[in-house]
Amino acid sequence: MHDDPVLQVAPDTLPTLSAWAQKIAPTPLQIALASAAKPSVLSLALGLPDPTLLPHVAISEAARRVALSNRSALQYSIPHLPLKEHIRTLLMEKGVECPLECIFLTQGAQQALNLLSVLLLNKRSLIVEEKFSYPGFQSLTSSFSPEVLTVSTSARDGIDVDALEILLSRSSRPPALIYVMPNAHNPLGVTMSIEKRIRLASLAREFKVPLIEDDPYGELFYDERIPPIRSIESQWVYYVGTFSKLLGPSLRVGWIVAPEKHVEALSVIKENCDLNIMTYPQCIVNEYLDTNDLTLHLAHLRSSYKERRAAMNCALSDHMPSGVKWHVPSGGIFFWIDLPDGLDATALLIKCLEEQNVAFLPSQAFSRGNAKSGMRLNFSHPTPDQLVDGVRRVGTVLNSLLQ
Amino acid sequence: MHDDPVLQVAPDTLPTLSAWAQKIAPTPLQIALASAAKPSVLSLALGLPDPTLLPHVAISEAARRVALSNRSALQYSIPHLPLKEHIRTLLMEKGVECPLECIFLTQGAQQALNLLSVLLLNKRSLIVEEKFSYPGFQSLTSSFSPEVLTVSTSARDGIDVDALEILLSRSSRPPALIYVMPNAHNPLGVTMSIEKRIRLASLAREFKVPLIEDDPYGELFYDERIPPIRSIESQWVYYVGTFSKLLGPSLRVGWIVAPEKHVEALSVIKENCDLNIMTYPQCIVNEYLDTNDLTLHLAHLRSSYKERRAAMNCALSDHMPSGVKWHVPSGGIFFWIDLPDGLDATALLIKCLEEQNVAFLPSQAFSRGNAKSGMRLNFSHPTPDQLVDGVRRVGTVLNSLLQ
Repeated sequence: MHDDPVLQVAPDTLPTLSAWAQKIAPTPLQIALASAAKPSVLSLALGLPDPTLLPHVAISEAARRVALSNRSALQYSIPHLPLKEHIRTLLMEKGVECPLECIFLTQGAQQALNLLSVLLLNKRSLIVEEKFSYPGFQSLTSSFSPEVLTVSTSARDGIDVDALEILLSRSSRPPALIYVMPNAHNPLGVTMSIEKRIRLASLAREFKVPLIEDDPYGELFYDERIPPIRSIESQWVYYVGTFSKLLGPSLRVGWIVAPEKHVEALSVIKENCDLNIMTYPQCIVNEYLDTNDLTLHLAHLRSSYKERRAAMNCALSDHMPSGVKWHVPSGGIFFWIDLPDGLDATALLIKCLEEQNVAFLPSQAFSRGNAKSGMRLNFSHPTPDQLVDGVRRVGTVLNSLLQ
Repeated sequence: MHDDPVLQVAPDTLPTLSAWAQKIAPTPLQIALASAAKPSVLSLALGLPDPTLLPHVAISEAARRVALSNRSALQYSIPHLPLKEHIRTLLMEKGVECPLECIFLTQGAQQALNLLSVLLLNKRSLIVEEKFSYPGFQSLTSSFSPEVLTVSTSARDGIDVDALEILLSRSSRPPALIYVMPNAHNPLGVTMSIEKRIRLASLAREFKVPLIEDDPYGELFYDERIPPIRSIESQWVYYVGTFSKLLGPSLRVGWIVAPEKHVEALSVIKENCDLNIMTYPQCIVNEYLDTNDLTLHLAHLRSSYKERRAAMNCALSDHMPSGVKWHVPSGGIFFWIDLPDGLDATALLIKCLEEQNVAFLPSQAFSRGNAKSGMRLNFSHPTPDQLVDGVRRVGTVLNSLLQ
């Protein structure tokens, strides 16, 4: 007998979560980003559109009119067909021809990616993505415990198609999907050349691998517009588009262009998720498109964001130390900065938050935690003055580290 | 050598779907329901609110004001806190006390159920549901290939808690969840007694099984209001609520009341689904609640639907043959009809469509295809004249079958 008190085991007072949900825990990056959300922090971290460039007045009028005049706007009803017709027109302007039956409306691009994952992935499927890729895709596919193969991406013209071909020909089993962002790649900013798009389409066909073409920034091009891969190949490409960056993210209206035979399965998957009845926002976007000039609005977005791109490029030239490299992005809302080898971008973020109250997204966020030395800077949400100030602050910390 | 032509195998020209997606195929019931959607059919099948009872004018004004005055209404932003305060008030009126941190906003009740499944279920988990239950829950959980145990339900006072206790005590492994609808059960219409709610709460605690309390019809009670199970037990109950039947399904605003410790995991799961930024509809509902009298609106809904309940009850008494039985539902929007044993409700639906252009939902829709002899009739969407006519038409077919 001894004096130690008997260990009191607390009763298990909460339900046991699923194996996957038990693994959910904040990463060091998420903890850093939580502190980046403080109002005192100048954030270049997220990918928000400038709210002053969103059509608040036109959307408010569209929302009012639709709820008043359309008796099925608030009701359970099927996906809104007239909106699909507008989307078909938008797609034709990009060179994509498809029947209405191939257009499937989603709750933004994120849900599109989620539905496609359920459509195409089994537990432990093999997926191919770029070495740097969209974290929302990486996070949602992680629940499938996939085997992930990565391909590097040239900052000049996009994914390394030769490396991809070798990888596909040597793979012991066929990948369940390839995920790419040909326009204004997030986070790299690069737009894939037409030659590489053609190669990619033919690799998908040859190796019979479905290809997800994620295109949230396709309308935000500042130099030239290149046709989507879907315009080259229709059987093996699932094209994902969205109005989020153009009209407002919280409207949550996006779409998939899928082979017609798979649309029924997508409907069932979406009904399980949310009943597939987001009619009101769909009607609002449709009413906006009926009564406003989208072409004019997009031209205004492009010219405004192009000016900020120039402002950020100047600020980078002024404030980044030597050894730091970047390309001017041809579209989208981000600069990607290559930091000197060995510099840990998450550690840099923590230092930037502590010393300069400024935030960005480090390369770890885009590489399933692996890649250390890069950062993504947003230029759409901060004002021109803020983005110059933000780059100056990051430069101050970098200069102190590298001198 | 023989003359048979060489079999031409068509090339595999479309991507291979996931194992689960390959199994998606329309059931005979779905095919019947597709023909029930024709405009010429008088439908008592679905669970739509009466559109003339939805607050179109107030919602249209709320949508306009919010998009004009709130600069973050269309932006990416976090779930809308003021709406959670309104929901907390609504919950308190039902006897549920909970901090704001336990309220998690969802895209309607269907998404709430989907997120809770991901939170709680593994592949082949054991789940407990009532013999008749909500098809949307059955369909979404089918992707987990669950083992399903069923408990019968009394039309007088709800789930058979004695049978449930025996089932839990004899189960070789603990169920991952129990799913119930205590108020105005869909499809049975029955409201669970307070005694059974107390027993259910204590069984969940005793056997450490999470209980999903799905409550889409809780505000549509026509006799008395009984407190939710969540008011009795907070650790083991996940309460699901929604504004769908009250303000408009396509607003897609629902919520979960969960143990606070699980809200972070729900956030990650929802971000993977759709980024968790349905701010605009959340702001619209909040603005509606700020500037309108919900209590008055709910009283109007109850009195209107109560009249239709009376009309349908009269029509059933007038037109149903003997051997057909029903209880008057204490809430919600459905009558459940017990047909004579051996009568196949899906076959009856097909006959009703062919001979009388009238539709309902047969019992197979609510029992994972198993139970034959029941039907669900909706009384919220048809006008009083239509519902009397619909019941008369179903009665005509039934009388011809049973005479």
